[in-house]
Amino acid sequence: VKRVVIGGATHGNEWIGAWLVERWLTHPDEVTRASFETLPLLCNPAALAERTRYIDQDLNRSFDGPSNAEGAPLESRRAAEILRQLGPNGRTPADVVLDLHTTTANMGLTYILTNRDPFNLRMAAWVKQHVPNLKVYGWIDDTLPRRSFSSIVARGATIEVGPTANNVVRGDLLLGTKSIVAACLDFVEAHNQADPATRARVELELFSHLSVQDYPRDADGRLTAFIHPEFQDRDYQPLEHGDPIFMTLDGQTIGYQGRETVYPVFINEAAYYEKGIAFSLTEKQLLNV
Amino acid sequence: VKRVVIGGATHGNEWIGAWLVERWLTHPDEVTRASFETLPLLCNPAALAERTRYIDQDLNRSFDGPSNAEGAPLESRRAAEILRQLGPNGRTPADVVLDLHTTTANMGLTYILTNRDPFNLRMAAWVKQHVPNLKVYGWIDDTLPRRSFSSIVARGATIEVGPTANNVVRGDLLLGTKSIVAACLDFVEAHNQADPATRARVELELFSHLSVQDYPRDADGRLTAFIHPEFQDRDYQPLEHGDPIFMTLDGQTIGYQGRETVYPVFINEAAYYEKGIAFSLTEKQLLNV
Repeated sequence: VKRVVIGGATHGNEWIGAWLVERWLTHPDEVTRASFETLPLLCNPAALAERTRYIDQDLNRSFDGPSNAEGAPLESRRAAEILRQLGPNGRTPADVVLDLHTTTANMGLTYILTNRDPFNLRMAAWVKQHVPNLKVYGWIDDTLPRRSFSSIVARGATIEVGPTANNVVRGDLLLGTKSIVAACLDFVEAHNQADPATRARVELELFSHLSVQDYPRDADGRLTAFIHPEFQDRDYQPLEHGDPIFMTLDGQTIGYQGRETVYPVFINEAAYYEKGIAFSLTEKQLLNV
Repeated sequence: VKRVVIGGATHGNEWIGAWLVERWLTHPDEVTRASFETLPLLCNPAALAERTRYIDQDLNRSFDGPSNAEGAPLESRRAAEILRQLGPNGRTPADVVLDLHTTTANMGLTYILTNRDPFNLRMAAWVKQHVPNLKVYGWIDDTLPRRSFSSIVARGATIEVGPTANNVVRGDLLLGTKSIVAACLDFVEAHNQADPATRARVELELFSHLSVQDYPRDADGRLTAFIHPEFQDRDYQPLEHGDPIFMTLDGQTIGYQGRETVYPVFINEAAYYEKGIAFSLTEKQLLNV
């Protein structure tokens, strides 16, 4: 690995990554390791300046449709620009991408895998050894290739921390994000040094993506229910048949209808109302990596 | 009291009030009482449609400068429109205004007084009897008259619930807001019926506004620190000399320098970064009302 890119402000209202990247741009020593270059990158500075998730469309769903065309969405043009610099055929290709996000859901410190590349699984296991409360979520959906920033190269991860509002910096989650990034950089350094610790067999608990669940809606598409108070904040907790998931505006409880025990994530994420996602469901797996 | 107005979406990204007002517009029976009219009002529908706090400027700081002029800020024109309808000289004047807000700060269920009108103090005490975990915050600043929606008439309150991100509905806080509104309407009904319970002498714990505290900044005005992790979420908890309040980006702790015990509120409210407010300070008072 010659070059690690750390992205912040892929969403311009997620400030922890933005603040850390801005810090590291002026204090590169804090993310320097001996055997590779670390490149902090503000991914969507226009959206950051506007304190909004995006200007025209979600940058983190734009890397499968980059465009230089005048009149193309700002984020398509920005994706093209980033790929020209850091993509596999770019001027200075990234070997590993870490992309820093926040969520309004109670996901704690989450490491998102977008593929099962052994390097990524081993980096996840390494980070979890150094950040024990880390959760590893495998959001692997082969029907949606290369849309996210961290998937422009095979190696890397999306870091997702919460719960936090947008447009604020929560100190505990900022410090948690720093500790995850430090562990990732240490892993890459150990990997480059062929440290046998990077290849030790370990068990990894993985929450593997199954499906997404939309809100109940009326005929006009308007939401008719909200996340049930007893379900709110129960990310990564087992969800069983009959457990409350929604409460309608007239006070009725809607229970989970599935038969299998599942593990929800992204419960009540602000940005996913428009995507039709009230929460996502995962199954828990134990991998030997 | 002939008319109570319940405002939601005064800030278009605070959805609990917006959802409740939209519900009550189609289900008025849920907020009807025998002796007065209840009028639910979407205060800033344009900002709600854009899922943003405001379009041109904060509507809740616009009621001292209403304007019908073409080219005036959207919120100045909306304030003028609301005053023409509901102001003291309006077509259908409001007698009591309840304005429903959310905050990213850990303020639980908060009832904000903007003056010490005895009606308002007694309504606060009544609501606290029915919602025991209610906090009452007196944000009384005579240098800033009539800027907020709830101050267009002397009687009323701003309801502020948190912590929650913007652009989400948290069920527990929605139910809490409903219970506060119900208690307010019951108080007005009892007041109209000359129920002696509305005049019983009670003690009221009031957190009375003292001052606001900005973030540390560099010469260019950029923030150099964030709310200290040990201070985050400690709204309404005593703050003593030396207690941590900020952490700088290079990890230094900044302590509180005041000599008196104070009680902070609005710690890390997203919308107040631009207002230069990291948190506000209050003192605790016991009133006989």
